[in-house]
Amino acid sequence: MMANTSELAQQLRIDSLRCSTAAGSGHPTSSLSAADLMAVLLEQALRWDLRHPDNPNNDHLIFSKGHASPLLYAMLKAAGVITDAELLSYRRFRSPLQGHPVPTLPGVEVATGSLGQGLPIGVGMALSGKYLEKRPYRVWVLLGDSEMSEGSIWEALDHARHFKLGNLVGILDMNRLGQRGETPLGWNGTAYAQRARAFGWNAFEIDGHDRNAIAYAYREALVDPDTPTLIVARTVKGKGVSLVENQDGWHGKALDEKQCAEAIAELGGERHLAVRVRAPDPDQPSNPTVYPADLPAYERGTQVATRKAYGDALQALGGARSDIVVLDGEVGNSTYAEEFAKAYPGRYFEMFISEQQMVAAAVGLSARQHAPFASSFAAFLTRAYDFIRMAAASRANIRLCGSHAGVSIGEDGPSQMGLEDLAMMRAVRGSTVLYPCCANQTARLVESMANRRGVVYLRTTREKTPVLYDDKESFPIGGSKVLRLSTADRAVIIGAGITVHEALKAHGRLLDQGIRTRVVDAYSIKPIDGAGIRTAVEATGGTVVVVEDHWSEGGLGDAVLECLNGERPLTARVVRLAVKTMPGSGKPAELLHAAGIDADAIAAAVRALLPRKKSRNCYICGNPALWRIAVGGEDESATHENACEAHASGHLRIGRLASSPSNQRTGGVTP
Amino acid sequence: MMANTSELAQQLRIDSLRCSTAAGSGHPTSSLSAADLMAVLLEQALRWDLRHPDNPNNDHLIFSKGHASPLLYAMLKAAGVITDAELLSYRRFRSPLQGHPVPTLPGVEVATGSLGQGLPIGVGMALSGKYLEKRPYRVWVLLGDSEMSEGSIWEALDHARHFKLGNLVGILDMNRLGQRGETPLGWNGTAYAQRARAFGWNAFEIDGHDRNAIAYAYREALVDPDTPTLIVARTVKGKGVSLVENQDGWHGKALDEKQCAEAIAELGGERHLAVRVRAPDPDQPSNPTVYPADLPAYERGTQVATRKAYGDALQALGGARSDIVVLDGEVGNSTYAEEFAKAYPGRYFEMFISEQQMVAAAVGLSARQHAPFASSFAAFLTRAYDFIRMAAASRANIRLCGSHAGVSIGEDGPSQMGLEDLAMMRAVRGSTVLYPCCANQTARLVESMANRRGVVYLRTTREKTPVLYDDKESFPIGGSKVLRLSTADRAVIIGAGITVHEALKAHGRLLDQGIRTRVVDAYSIKPIDGAGIRTAVEATGGTVVVVEDHWSEGGLGDAVLECLNGERPLTARVVRLAVKTMPGSGKPAELLHAAGIDADAIAAAVRALLPRKKSRNCYICGNPALWRIAVGGEDESATHENACEAHASGHLRIGRLASSPSNQRTGGVTP
Repeated sequence: MMANTSELAQQLRIDSLRCSTAAGSGHPTSSLSAADLMAVLLEQALRWDLRHPDNPNNDHLIFSKGHASPLLYAMLKAAGVITDAELLSYRRFRSPLQGHPVPTLPGVEVATGSLGQGLPIGVGMALSGKYLEKRPYRVWVLLGDSEMSEGSIWEALDHARHFKLGNLVGILDMNRLGQRGETPLGWNGTAYAQRARAFGWNAFEIDGHDRNAIAYAYREALVDPDTPTLIVARTVKGKGVSLVENQDGWHGKALDEKQCAEAIAELGGERHLAVRVRAPDPDQPSNPTVYPADLPAYERGTQVATRKAYGDALQALGGARSDIVVLDGEVGNSTYAEEFAKAYPGRYFEMFISEQQMVAAAVGLSARQHAPFASSFAAFLTRAYDFIRMAAASRANIRLCGSHAGVSIGEDGPSQMGLEDLAMMRAVRGSTVLYPCCANQTARLVESMANRRGVVYLRTTREKTPVLYDDKESFPIGGSKVLRLSTADRAVIIGAGITVHEALKAHGRLLDQGIRTRVVDAYSIKPIDGAGIRTAVEATGGTVVVVEDHWSEGGLGDAVLECLNGERPLTARVVRLAVKTMPGSGKPAELLHAAGIDADAIAAAVRALLPRKKSRNCYICGNPALWRIAVGGEDESATHENACEAHASGHLRIGRLASSPSNQRTGGVTP
Repeated sequence: MMANTSELAQQLRIDSLRCSTAAGSGHPTSSLSAADLMAVLLEQALRWDLRHPDNPNNDHLIFSKGHASPLLYAMLKAAGVITDAELLSYRRFRSPLQGHPVPTLPGVEVATGSLGQGLPIGVGMALSGKYLEKRPYRVWVLLGDSEMSEGSIWEALDHARHFKLGNLVGILDMNRLGQRGETPLGWNGTAYAQRARAFGWNAFEIDGHDRNAIAYAYREALVDPDTPTLIVARTVKGKGVSLVENQDGWHGKALDEKQCAEAIAELGGERHLAVRVRAPDPDQPSNPTVYPADLPAYERGTQVATRKAYGDALQALGGARSDIVVLDGEVGNSTYAEEFAKAYPGRYFEMFISEQQMVAAAVGLSARQHAPFASSFAAFLTRAYDFIRMAAASRANIRLCGSHAGVSIGEDGPSQMGLEDLAMMRAVRGSTVLYPCCANQTARLVESMANRRGVVYLRTTREKTPVLYDDKESFPIGGSKVLRLSTADRAVIIGAGITVHEALKAHGRLLDQGIRTRVVDAYSIKPIDGAGIRTAVEATGGTVVVVEDHWSEGGLGDAVLECLNGERPLTARVVRLAVKTMPGSGKPAELLHAAGIDADAIAAAVRALLPRKKSRNCYICGNPALWRIAVGGEDESATHENACEAHASGHLRIGRLASSPSNQRTGGVTP
């Protein structure tokens, strides 16, 4: 039997009911309202080659109202992607047909279920279609009316207009009822349409159960290649089933078996139509060109901000890899994403002050096989946390860079200081969290990010800092570097980013006082270098100072404690220096000092941890002595010479001083 | 000399330049564009009693474009709140005149600087003025045009219309230029006005440097008590200083001293006018009525979801305290905030699916001395992280409740599971993080939340769980409870919320196998009960299993490791059970099991930690034995009897069995 729209729509309704009743939960009424919209889409508008889900000309359909997943799965069954038995596995343990869509089935490309995310993700896909892939596909987004209250929807409308995304169509299932009552606008379709038009979209108000009106709207939506369209479809929640139609109290509830049977009868009985979805022209996905990048190199000892190195490295990668796409939240001259923008304007999208839209677009671009990087101040990435969390559920490969981390930004004050970004990013499933202290290191890590799967985060620093590493040094993700090391180390200082430089200063001061410390640069916060850090901690008798420009919760300190708590737990005295009170404005050095995370604080913490010794006196005159320490001394007492400042140069037997303190401080990078 | 508007405006410009040049940083050009707007506001529209900043009839002014702080401080100087010398301390270490406003000065009530937050906070203040305080004050919000790209601005427009906030006026300083170039809409004032009108606001387009037009707009903005107004003021960035006027590349840059001197000359020279701001009718802040609440009580052993107890307790508190105000993100029938809404509809605001606006409104209500509670699914509070972070900078006292935490929600899948909320909330300055496992405990904690300062978070569970505690039990913040204890405990299991119940089950199973464990309910995640947990860990020889329904980063496990790493570090073997792979749909028990955080996993982890012993056999027949353990036994071997199941009841010398395992499992709560 040839399917016609209303027959198919009834089947979609019935299958939505069947699978949710079988599951005992789900959102059948939210599916019933949109069944006619989706039936017409499947039969008349969607271009989708189900035998070739990787056909790059395929349209994209996103259920932004992810709770209508029964309808989505009913569509996949009608299109022949899943069987009826698979449909009935809905919401079962290990079934790919989850309560809200996740990309485990052909035709489901991103996870939804946190409302307001599907349309901004669709903007990312549409950007790709129009500007990067230059393909004729369209992006259809099914929207619920409740999610129109999310600001991210309006960010998407704003950006779709700005980028002239005529390939993007929003289908608003205006069923009037939210979870617990009427939406703010109810059935006021004119209000939605006026808002959309004010945001530069075409808008049509239609009866969402009139298949002719729906088909007309879909055709009209595609006429203007430069204007996105919102179809405001007035629908009835629970449409077709008198028990639940337009009723409060039926959101997110499955019918029981008896109710379901009656509803199926009311809808004309079970049917199993197969719909032939029209396929677009066949094509193969194009492979990006990927060459080794000629990364920027910085001279050791020069002052370069890691944020600048981020921009430089991005630009270098842009030349080597055609899949790199860069987004920024209107701070590209601060994050230095502008370096890429200048070189490759066609692969750079200015997302303005809309961090949610920026991250969502990155997810959409990832779904289209690009390698997106997106940047803003670390503080402002908190704006997009729900999107970052959902990116992990979408299995997206996105790279985020947060600049201006910590109190070290100085005068701008706490609103601009990223102080929770490490905690936020560590607690994302499968994430990678990197925090370089040096420009050459940054460049290498940016290169690694491009190849890394999942959500990858790089934290950069506003201030210029000395280049510590050679440009040929490698920085594996999950590694760390020991910057200062001797066999006489009595404590280990673990820092990352800006605090590495404070740790090095503290090392020098402590050395002047005869206290040797090991300095570890934990540039890979997640995964943390458990083996390397444990080795350093064991070698120094378990005396550890961890220092970070971040709140004390969730950052480097927690990561270090986690790796000390291994199979074989170490007894260590770990002092954690981190930001503990609300900072204000001031110079970077003042704020690092006030927060207790500068060289002074580190040196004091090390000294406080070490057992007190009797002070030694000059072996010539008996006055308080300086300590000079020989490199590689096995036994401290055997290799130390104690002399007061006045006597030090003249009386010490130089032959036993293998290295002077100043040599030590400028010593090379050790394995 | 009597100030007139343009004289005052020039002074505001000059002082904006002077203080930012003195600081060597800041945003003078963003201040210059809005100087006429703010001069007219100060002289003609604002009602503010500077001698009585707590006059509850005072208007409120929020600089949503917080980077224009030089202009704000110049206004405070003109109004006599600060001296000229104080003005020139701008951005200095320890000066209250921070780079972006924080509430350290009269007239600054909330922190801004993360764009797009001032207007939604203003919605909260306006809600209070119109519906709670019923006072004539108006809320004025100075907006930048770049921040109109933030979705949260449109959430605010939507809610202001919905709540008919005619006491809210947005003043849009449309200076065309963002940080790095033109805004998406440039000087298209008509587009902004049309969008605002589509969102149900009045909108005026004016020349933002024409003081008559400004004054007219301010008067007209207040005419309609039920309609908020947006004044779209076309301005010129850097207005009045030819060096910087309407120039790219001058965002966030101070003039040097020479440039500043020339600019001051161009503006007609330094002046020090005092403006008399019109005071509203005097009044005293009204004190809320606060009585002890008659909290709900639940019978031990009954099944009650903690989210239900949250709603019940809120309702009880609502009757006892007039300052409690409740907000919810259109899921009040899931979070059970609806219990409060039913009883006290006048103090309940439905914020629909707009978590950013919800938290911002709570901040605004806190600034008006209410005690707001706001709830949604824990997962969706991630949407508002930037607002929560900034609430701490605003020194707001807000209480957030996240329901549906963890994989234990079951079929809805990962998009609905709060799995990063503990990490997110711990990393907020001064926050409190609570996670109850029992309805009576929840009620007590909700009561404590009402009195707690700062950002206070409560995590609740979807599933019904047994009531464990008596309704008279107290639960101090920073405490924990030992639920199972004996002197023969060989390991401690630390859980919170849903995992406490799994820990108790594991305890019972292990007991059957002769392994005694201590069970700790760490309901206060931050502050964590360091002393209590250390005591439990020491008593059990440092064998610890921490189990949480959360990602392994940033939650209970990190908090426990932090408290074991005290002044006197403990050697402990801590096994952390947490969610490590992306969950799917399924029944709660299936998902707890798959995540390795159920009783099976806990028991297995404890067994794996304990040293292996030779298995003992029944002392009668030699078959594998059950272990029965006497309570209070000093030496395990002396107080154990080993018998197989068949022989256990008949042959054991009952006299030596102080307590049977089943008694143990239902045993009372111990200190």
